Amino acid sequence: MKFFTSFFVTLIIIGLPVVTFGGDIKASHDINYPAGWQNWPSIAVSHRTDNNTIRIILGNEVAVEAARTGKTNPWPDGAILGKVVWKDIQLENWEEATVPGQFVHAEFMLKDSKKYSDTYGWGWARWVGSDQNPFNKGAQVCISCHTPVKDRDWVFTEPAQYPGMK
Amino acid sequence: MKFFTSFFVTLIIIGLPVVTFGGDIKASHDINYPAGWQNWPSIAVSHRTDNNTIRIILGNEVAVEAARTGKTNPWPDGAILGKVVWKDIQLENWEEATVPGQFVHAEFMLKDSKKYSDTYGWGWARWVGSDQNPFNKGAQVCISCHTPVKDRDWVFTEPAQYPGMK
Repeated sequence: MKFFTSFFVTLIIIGLPVVTFGGDIKASHDINYPAGWQNWPSIAVSHRTDNNTIRIILGNEVAVEAARTGKTNPWPDGAILGKVVWKDIQLENWEEATVPGQFVHAEFMLKDSKKYSDTYGWGWARWVGSDQNPFNKGAQVCISCHTPVKDRDWVFTEPAQYPGMK
Repeated sequence: MKFFTSFFVTLIIIGLPVVTFGGDIKASHDINYPAGWQNWPSIAVSHRTDNNTIRIILGNEVAVEAARTGKTNPWPDGAILGKVVWKDIQLENWEEATVPGQFVHAEFMLKDSKKYSDTYGWGWARWVGSDQNPFNKGAQVCISCHTPVKDRDWVFTEPAQYPGMK
């Protein structure tokens, strides 16, 4: 233990980056990193030509259940939506296809109508780049962009159709 | 049991559609419907402008583990890749965004280098439309389209970067 403490203190002192993953990633807007989002089920996908990005929209268990059953206005408390964003690139072996290139950020909306009553019932968080650096410029930055969908409980995503479920 | 048998036989005789989901969906190329794919983790996404579709590429546990660790040429036996395809539409509240519209089909590649040695180590299956009707025109239809990526173990998808994992 002492060795590891000394090791990291040494790294910091000599200026080497301390790589942090998962539980060690710092909070964004006082929201902890949603561990395990990388394996959450998908809800939808999108491609934006204004900033050349391609995205997957994911959800935790509460969000996916709500998406599959159409209970999304409002989304239930406990729902977490994740949007994973990459720069888009052309697929080498199929030129008409656009696919993920460089990772941009992962951003999340956490529904808790009481806890986040000051920000329209949602906690707003984002982690940037492959190092997942927390975005901490204030939820208002997120909210202003989402204002066109305030009547959709502040969510752009319309859940895609997933047939074949029992 | 007898009641249900009679019930469905009656439905078939009088010509009403028998809605089948999950385990009741018929096989495609002798491959059973991969139950639960709707909640599999994502591996990548794509947008095709030649047929105006937008897609999510999903994987079972073996496939996702291989994707995250870069062991994809060849993909390991037991891996199942799913490609979920929708027609693309413009998002009403963000005009530069393209999102899923009508569901087209879900198609799967199942890796088993022995069982499917006649079709390059993969089983090829597809279920079409919201009724998930099995595609049974032969694996060669799938293989011919995938020939440009025969040196990538017949897989177009390059797994996207998912940072922040421990």
